Amino acid sequence: MSSVFGTIFRVSTFGESHCAAVGAVVDGAPAGMKLAESDIQSQLDRRRPGQGELTTPRDEKDVVTILSGVENGVTLGTPIALMVHNRDQHPSDYQEMAGIPRPSHADYTYQAKYGVRASSGGGRSSARETIGRVAAGAIAEKYLAERYGIEIVAWVESVGEIGCGAIDLENITRSMVDATPVRSPDPGAARAMSELIAEVRDQKDSVGGVVGCVCRNLPAGLGEPVFDKLEAMLAHAMLSIPATKGFEIGSGFGGSRMRGSAHNDPFVQKGGRLGTTSNYSGGVQGGISNGEPVHFRVAFKPPATIALKQQTAAFDGTDAVLEAKGRHDPCVVPRAVPIVEGMTALVMMDLLLRQEYRKRSG
Amino acid sequence: MSSVFGTIFRVSTFGESHCAAVGAVVDGAPAGMKLAESDIQSQLDRRRPGQGELTTPRDEKDVVTILSGVENGVTLGTPIALMVHNRDQHPSDYQEMAGIPRPSHADYTYQAKYGVRASSGGGRSSARETIGRVAAGAIAEKYLAERYGIEIVAWVESVGEIGCGAIDLENITRSMVDATPVRSPDPGAARAMSELIAEVRDQKDSVGGVVGCVCRNLPAGLGEPVFDKLEAMLAHAMLSIPATKGFEIGSGFGGSRMRGSAHNDPFVQKGGRLGTTSNYSGGVQGGISNGEPVHFRVAFKPPATIALKQQTAAFDGTDAVLEAKGRHDPCVVPRAVPIVEGMTALVMMDLLLRQEYRKRSG
Amino acid sequence: MSSVFGTIFRVSTFGESHCAAVGAVVDGAPAGMKLAESDIQSQLDRRRPGQGELTTPRDEKDVVTILSGVENGVTLGTPIALMVHNRDQHPSDYQEMAGIPRPSHADYTYQAKYGVRASSGGGRSSARETIGRVAAGAIAEKYLAERYGIEIVAWVESVGEIGCGAIDLENITRSMVDATPVRSPDPGAARAMSELIAEVRDQKDSVGGVVGCVCRNLPAGLGEPVFDKLEAMLAHAMLSIPATKGFEIGSGFGGSRMRGSAHNDPFVQKGGRLGTTSNYSGGVQGGISNGEPVHFRVAFKPPATIALKQQTAAFDGTDAVLEAKGRHDPCVVPRAVPIVEGMTALVMMDLLLRQEYRKRSG
Amino acid sequence: MSSVFGTIFRVSTFGESHCAAVGAVVDGAPAGMKLAESDIQSQLDRRRPGQGELTTPRDEKDVVTILSGVENGVTLGTPIALMVHNRDQHPSDYQEMAGIPRPSHADYTYQAKYGVRASSGGGRSSARETIGRVAAGAIAEKYLAERYGIEIVAWVESVGEIGCGAIDLENITRSMVDATPVRSPDPGAARAMSELIAEVRDQKDSVGGVVGCVCRNLPAGLGEPVFDKLEAMLAHAMLSIPATKGFEIGSGFGGSRMRGSAHNDPFVQKGGRLGTTSNYSGGVQGGISNGEPVHFRVAFKPPATIALKQQTAAFDGTDAVLEAKGRHDPCVVPRAVPIVEGMTALVMMDLLLRQEYRKRSG
Repeated sequence: MSSVFGTIFRVSTFGESHCAAVGAVVDGAPAGMKLAESDIQSQLDRRRPGQGELTTPRDEKDVVTILSGVENGVTLGTPIALMVHNRDQHPSDYQEMAGIPRPSHADYTYQAKYGVRASSGGGRSSARETIGRVAAGAIAEKYLAERYGIEIVAWVESVGEIGCGAIDLENITRSMVDATPVRSPDPGAARAMSELIAEVRDQKDSVGGVVGCVCRNLPAGLGEPVFDKLEAMLAHAMLSIPATKGFEIGSGFGGSRMRGSAHNDPFVQKGGRLGTTSNYSGGVQGGISNGEPVHFRVAFKPPATIALKQQTAAFDGTDAVLEAKGRHDPCVVPRAVPIVEGMTALVMMDLLLRQEYRKRSG
Repeated sequence: MSSVFGTIFRVSTFGESHCAAVGAVVDGAPAGMKLAESDIQSQLDRRRPGQGELTTPRDEKDVVTILSGVENGVTLGTPIALMVHNRDQHPSDYQEMAGIPRPSHADYTYQAKYGVRASSGGGRSSARETIGRVAAGAIAEKYLAERYGIEIVAWVESVGEIGCGAIDLENITRSMVDATPVRSPDPGAARAMSELIAEVRDQKDSVGGVVGCVCRNLPAGLGEPVFDKLEAMLAHAMLSIPATKGFEIGSGFGGSRMRGSAHNDPFVQKGGRLGTTSNYSGGVQGGISNGEPVHFRVAFKPPATIALKQQTAAFDGTDAVLEAKGRHDPCVVPRAVPIVEGMTALVMMDLLLRQEYRKRSG
Repeated sequence: MSSVFGTIFRVSTFGESHCAAVGAVVDGAPAGMKLAESDIQSQLDRRRPGQGELTTPRDEKDVVTILSGVENGVTLGTPIALMVHNRDQHPSDYQEMAGIPRPSHADYTYQAKYGVRASSGGGRSSARETIGRVAAGAIAEKYLAERYGIEIVAWVESVGEIGCGAIDLENITRSMVDATPVRSPDPGAARAMSELIAEVRDQKDSVGGVVGCVCRNLPAGLGEPVFDKLEAMLAHAMLSIPATKGFEIGSGFGGSRMRGSAHNDPFVQKGGRLGTTSNYSGGVQGGISNGEPVHFRVAFKPPATIALKQQTAAFDGTDAVLEAKGRHDPCVVPRAVPIVEGMTALVMMDLLLRQEYRKRSG
Repeated sequence: MSSVFGTIFRVSTFGESHCAAVGAVVDGAPAGMKLAESDIQSQLDRRRPGQGELTTPRDEKDVVTILSGVENGVTLGTPIALMVHNRDQHPSDYQEMAGIPRPSHADYTYQAKYGVRASSGGGRSSARETIGRVAAGAIAEKYLAERYGIEIVAWVESVGEIGCGAIDLENITRSMVDATPVRSPDPGAARAMSELIAEVRDQKDSVGGVVGCVCRNLPAGLGEPVFDKLEAMLAHAMLSIPATKGFEIGSGFGGSRMRGSAHNDPFVQKGGRLGTTSNYSGGVQGGISNGEPVHFRVAFKPPATIALKQQTAAFDGTDAVLEAKGRHDPCVVPRAVPIVEGMTALVMMDLLLRQEYRKRSG
């Protein structure tokens, strides 16, 4: 009762790390839109492991197939089922962890919740679960871009204690982000981040980071007061991504230290509409987009599965030492970039469709 | 399509700042539970304005009436309608703001979204909207406490740049929080916070702050992977509160700077269940509660309505100077404490009811 | 978790027969629409008891108050809370039924479900529960009529074995329906129906009936395949009305006896659009409206509460004789007419708003 | 926004008649339940075409694959994705219908709704869409049977004007139903039905029918007043099946002609619980199951696609004669039997899970 996201543009994802396939069914996609697998594959390729030194060497091709909802390259308005086969399964890597729940991983809580859990890998808590999100998000993104010119760009803002310089929210592009393997648009910082990731990997450890994201050209009026405010939906979406620990929009936690006179964004005429001269609001006021760029940040913790020995307890309560095997990312943020973009697209698409009907009723 | 919150314990709130009444309908409350208006009133009293120097002098009694769903002091399992009349309306305070959208307030975005807006006060974006949440939350909280011993305590963690000292998450109580008017359990910090709030009020300005919250005795197993993870639902709930800009759980943004070997919470036997020796996870792993205290923080921006003159633009795009009249809080965090608690209760209640059926199906 | 109806135009009803008030909160009503209590009161007056000889003499005024969502006579796009106070409570009428569940009434099943039930009257299973539906439906109906010219008219098609003659679906109006107290547009049949109702009332018995309904000027394209087909939503809505036992659309059960060559509705050009020369489909094909009148029928059973002695069993399983006191309708269909209209309006409104966004995405 | 069914046990179906695959994702299935593809295949085999003389000769194997949610033959509590490949596609059969909407089929309304439609076959309005429902229903049915002993049996009650004799609701079984190809448990009537179907097939025509269904051993207490009454959910589910025109529960339309004194079901002690001596209620009172068999009937119209020439209009409004090619059932009710059972299982499963949590809160 929890793998469905959205009210009108509804995405139902499925798949564990080691079952036959992962994917999603997208219900509510507009009819009459051109759509091919290549529109989806590009973001999956940015998400998949094995892209370079910094990520796990598990090399799945993650090729998406559209099973339904599209005929002659055009969407029918009916559910679009998307499937990616799982390959390259090494379940034996996980055998010795069967009796010992990985600290800060989902082994213990899945067992507590369901009374059973996938015996290998993370099951549904694995990063492979995000394939369905990214695939569905790519469909949303295409619609948003083609009909509204909406652009969504995410980047790595920090890895551990290394942060990037100021980002030009109006002009940053995905190609600028992809210019470095770590996906941070500040070349100097990117180099240091890469070195840090390599270092923690060599130490059999892991490290966290922050992903920033901007959504441009969003029309004013999106977001549904009071419970489905734009920032509430974004926060929900972002904190549903594995390994996230925080979300802030606009001024965020820093804004809590400011005075209203400094924080308020004054209005000014901007080419036929009201805009603001600053953007501490992050593009949202009262839970509704104001036409300025929506800007937010997402905190990711260091991955829980590390090769370092850990003193912990087994499921039966006895003392245990865990030394994880298998292939694991030392840092998730470079691959999290397309996931953050995908979830952003899902939120904006749903809010946009929820708002569109209202324009006719003015 | 946005004033309904929850899947099984479903709350539908209503009311603008200056209409006849505000309130909520609670659908899905368990039958057979003792419930009186006094169970709800206490949290409303903590939320209402006019409690002291630090809040707006608008003195509503905010007396709640239960309209339905309870007979002879016992819930029937049917919808519980809760109503609080609005009083003390000074719509004239708002007349001069009719043509000028308040910077960083919802005037502009409501107009953009709906093509119309409440002519006085914040309408639905007003803090009075939160009355329905707090009232509904009090019902949830009573159930959680009586059946599970679950305790929810929030407090003011910072006002502007002034933070409180470390909080003992296991032992903090509401009476410790209410010991100071600013609702921060660190007496020294509380005094400084009060002074700061008085200072910005005298400067006709406003200031932000952070609210911390802990939820204790939550059973392991709550939270619905993948989209309705416990932290995702909390983030959604918190960012739906007016004036919030950020959310973090456990280590939060700080965790993004840590190594996995330090961040992982080792398991240890704790009185018949597995617990953890540290709690960087904030009581949640893989989106599911692990039995440790759930701990999170919420950032509030400085209130947008200030009496200081502001250079801005009118709805028609012309330059304008705004000087807000009316009664407005210089800082919302003391009154936000019961709102954060109420929304926490709504989230936990819904997740608990969503989980309860599962226990029978093992 | 069951008193909320609709996806975009969402209605949350509340109230038992003998609590303080009954009503509804309407979430998702379009902004900018003129709305006054008088727009709602007229349908409530058609629903309320005490309209004449044929209904229960319990004389409530059932005066509706709009608590929120409307300012200066215009909807704000925010939740509209509607309240009707309960009056004229005679709980003592119900005392002797406390130990004996009324046969075919909800006493037993509410007790089985909730472990508690309203001690007097039907509680939530009472006909008073429908006040919220009718009030919310009146708002939907106003929007449908003003923006689309949609007309919804229901009538009594039969009482017991007495049926009315053929109805002209294109031209029947509410004033034709209201011309007789029994609300059947065939004067001869209406007289016989009234006599039958009076007869069963004098016999301390009750009788069932059928309500017919037509919805005209609905645009083609409403209804959401596959699970929320127009007829599925109507069937859901109608079978949620107390005392209903059946629903059929277009040819209905009679259609099951026909050949396809006779049942198929041939297309023909009708003033710029395709129409059909017959309407066995009832205005719906593949779950989607085709622009022809939507026509359906709803079966109501005889009311369960009768003054005749009934041999039955008490809650404790012992034999018992029940002789109901209190004021009860001998036949519900005359008052069911505005309820059927109201639920029809809720269904059409929600489907219309769900469709409107799609028109922009062609 | 319409291919998702259920609140807790949520089924999302996908697939057109001529795309790559059809199927469903089941979210909310209980963990720890044994499940294999063979548990699902049996009902699919009863649904598939090509079972005999009476159905279309299109012979798909309709082999189901479980893509996720099951490991080592046990459900994980995570989404179960089910896929059936489409084969045997003859899109050329449909070419000449491209310009002419089939009377009483969904060609015209899909085009009106979406502005595009599947160019071959019925697309999403095809009977193949029901594969996902039957597959998901089989999972629900297994849980209901194993944990509660709930039995669901449907049968053909009439074909055209030929009806079967009285059914023993307590004892009818699927093997009794499957004893004849037409799936009517009355051998004499079944023979006549088969002859009628053969006759209308030879006449290039089609014929409707009625399916009856009983659900036994359902515990008292299922159904969610007021909008999600058990009969409302069933009516919704049944009218969402292609080609349905009516639904009645218990006494149905016949009950509208009865007196209350005859229609009321007297209570009587039945082995430790209250039961009723008659069952005009159809197992439901006040929208909640009372422990008696739930009994209802569903009307199916004659299939719209017939080989007889039909005078109609083309999409462009010009007169046209349609003579459908391709393989089409002359009567859908024999194959509708497992579809009705599947949808019944989905409704009961969801209501049961919605009720289970309540038992713990008494």
